[in-house]
This record gives sequence, structure tokens and C-alpha cells, in this order.
Amino acid sequence: MKIAVLGTGMVGQAHAGKLAKLGHQVFMGTNSVAKTKARTKIDQMSRPGIGLWLEANHNVKLATFSRAEGSADLIINALSGQVCLKILQEIKANLADKILIDISNPLDFSKGYPQFLSLSNTDSLGEQIQKALPVTNVVKAFNTTNALVQVDPQAISGADHHLFLAGNDKAAKASVIKFAKQYYGWKNVLDLGDISSARGMEMVLPLWLEVRSSLNTPNFNFKIAR
Amino acid sequence: MKIAVLGTGMVGQAHAGKLAKLGHQVFMGTNSVAKTKARTKIDQMSRPGIGLWLEANHNVKLATFSRAEGSADLIINALSGQVCLKILQEIKANLADKILIDISNPLDFSKGYPQFLSLSNTDSLGEQIQKALPVTNVVKAFNTTNALVQVDPQAISGADHHLFLAGNDKAAKASVIKFAKQYYGWKNVLDLGDISSARGMEMVLPLWLEVRSSLNTPNFNFKIAR
Repeated sequence: MKIAVLGTGMVGQAHAGKLAKLGHQVFMGTNSVAKTKARTKIDQMSRPGIGLWLEANHNVKLATFSRAEGSADLIINALSGQVCLKILQEIKANLADKILIDISNPLDFSKGYPQFLSLSNTDSLGEQIQKALPVTNVVKAFNTTNALVQVDPQAISGADHHLFLAGNDKAAKASVIKFAKQYYGWKNVLDLGDISSARGMEMVLPLWLEVRSSLNTPNFNFKIAR
Repeated sequence: MKIAVLGTGMVGQAHAGKLAKLGHQVFMGTNSVAKTKARTKIDQMSRPGIGLWLEANHNVKLATFSRAEGSADLIINALSGQVCLKILQEIKANLADKILIDISNPLDFSKGYPQFLSLSNTDSLGEQIQKALPVTNVVKAFNTTNALVQVDPQAISGADHHLFLAGNDKAAKASVIKFAKQYYGWKNVLDLGDISSARGMEMVLPLWLEVRSSLNTPNFNFKIAR
């Protein structure tokens, strides 16, 4: 497949790196190719800058937005919650009639410990994106667990935990479920309904952060035990 | 133990019934004993009115607030999120220096499908209750799963799922953990920190409702898979 991953952060790197290794043609979308490649320092969290990551993952092609998703079969929104709505609106035409996997979370990291942008039981980023892109099939997924687990669920409890999904288009959701199982190894997927279920998926973040703090690791996921 | 269960709904019935069967002296607190006993009809959800439930569970003693918790060793807040803060403030003196297990959820059922009263990442009902009762040890617990699972976690996956806790007093949390394991059979308890972690525990409700709708059953719980 030809896949565009929008965003160059931890989540974008996890998906782009994994998909490229699997042999897909992967484009990573960014504002400025030159500026992104120039980020070669080690960051505050001891992670190599995206420039170094791109050198190590040379099968991932960096491109500006528009070029990245222009001819992609599937688009993954791994942009930060603060900026994604604006960027997606700018490249709206390229996203028409395509599936957009939305991993964004309504978090603002600009002031240190994350603030929440828009947690509410009457709206969600997922719905805002679907409204802004009415002819794109938005499928909210992956945002309820950390980047490494998103692309390698087997790393935890033999994948005995859940991926949640929400979206208006059943065929699009079926495609994302197949994608998640086939390429990442997800075993349990729970379809929560239309895109308004992005509300619950985004509002679980405070609990996720509390559990991370309690366990002192981000390597966990929610399982629905029955 | 002498235990007061405040509230006569599904959650109050589950805890009071279970604790009385275990041999504890259980008082159920209500506004009006006469009115509560008179509720003998089958309700909209095909459940017997509390009056019928009390006849079947005659070892649970019904009492007005104040009488119920006056001499109790432990108090369980199973009141609705809409009214609990007001009622707890009225009986504040009886709750001094005691442990109050807070199961309340910020839900308003008055208009059919639940509305959320106060979901936010800067406040929670748990914190509001702790602020209103500064010399009571409030422990938020049980609110993230349904009433039957709360008192019988073994009913699902051999209790292989999580009870979350939040509260400022470590000794009080240790007591509640012991209580949950000894009397209800909980196996996995995750302490999320001080009472501000009630935020995540309350904000998971929208996801809980979505999962219930997707699975078409309330009989499930969250497990943290690692």
C-alpha cells in the first residue's frame, strides 16, 4: 500500500517505521522538509531528533503536506491535537473519498504536563475532523494506547487487550480493522459506533495518564474483561 | 463491621445486600423511610421497587440519613451524583474522621440518556466531596464498573480486571483495598494517587457507556494489560 503518515512525532515515527519495514511505500508529511531533516539533536526526553530518525529509516520518505498524502491509499493522522484540524483543512482536497485514521488526542503539551484542549461529552477532535472533512471517511483509532503498543500490541500480554474504533462508515472501519490485525497484529478490536464515540476514546486520556503515573510506564493498554 | 450505605438505588442495593449476607450490620440511608418502603412497584427497567427489595433483604436496616451513618465504622456513598454533595454536607458531622467510599458518578439521568454533570480535567465529584468534608477520608472507588461487578468481581474473567482507587489518605486506601479484597473478592487494585485522580476515574464514564452499548451488556470491566 501507499500510506501517508501525517506528523513526525513519536506516533508518526512508530507507524511510519513499522509500515515501511513491512514493505509499504510510506510518506511522512511535515510542514517543511528542510527544517524537519535539520532536527538532529537529542531531545529533552532523550530521543533522537526526527532528522536522525529519518537517516536510520531511509525507506520512509519525507514530504510536505499535500505531496505526502496526494496519492496515498490510506492516511494516518499522527499530528498533535493542537494543530491537526488546521492542517487537515488545508489539505482537505487530497483527503476526499479516502480513509483517514485519526490518532490525535486533544492534548496541549506546550506548557509541560499536558493540558486538555477539548475534552467534553458533547464534542471530540474526531468529530471536528469528520465535520471539517465531510467526504473523507474518518476512523478514530489507536489513540487510547501508547505509540509502541499501537503498532506492536503483541509486546503486551500477547495482545490480549483492546483496540477501540469509532467512525461513520462501516466499510472504512472494516478496512481499518483488517489493517490493524494484518499489519500490526491486533487481536481484539471493539467498534464503538459512529464518530461521536470518539468522545469516550478521547476522554479516557486522563485515566490513561493516571495509570501511567501509577505504574511508572506507558507500556500498558486497556482490556475489556467480560 | 457496622456499615452505612447511603442511597437505595442499584449500587446501594448491591453493596448493602452483599455486606448483609456476609454478616455485617448494614444500615441503608435514605431521605424518608416511609416513602422508600412504599416504593413497591416494578420500575421501568423491570426491577422491583426498593420497598420489595427491602422485604427480601430484611437484614438490611433502612434508616434516615444521620441515623444510618451515625455510628457506622465505614460509609459508602452510593447516592446519585446529582444529590450526593448536598446530602453529604448535611450529615457532615457524622462523617468526621471516618472513611467514606465514594462511588458517585457525575451523571444526570433525569432527562433519559445520561448527561454529565461535571466531567472535567480540573475537577471531579470526588474532589468536591473531599473539599466539603475536610476531616473525612474520602476514597474514590468502584465507580468505573457496574454494581454487580463492584461486589462480585469474580463473576467476570475470574476477577482478572482492575479496581481503581484514589484518595489523599494512605491508611484509608489500604483499608478500602483490604475491604474490597476480603469481602468482595477483588484481586487487582490499582491506586491512582490522591483524590484528584478521581478526574480520570469519572471521565472514563463516556467510554464505559460506549462499550456497554457496543457489547450490549453492562457486565464487563476495564483491565490494565501490561
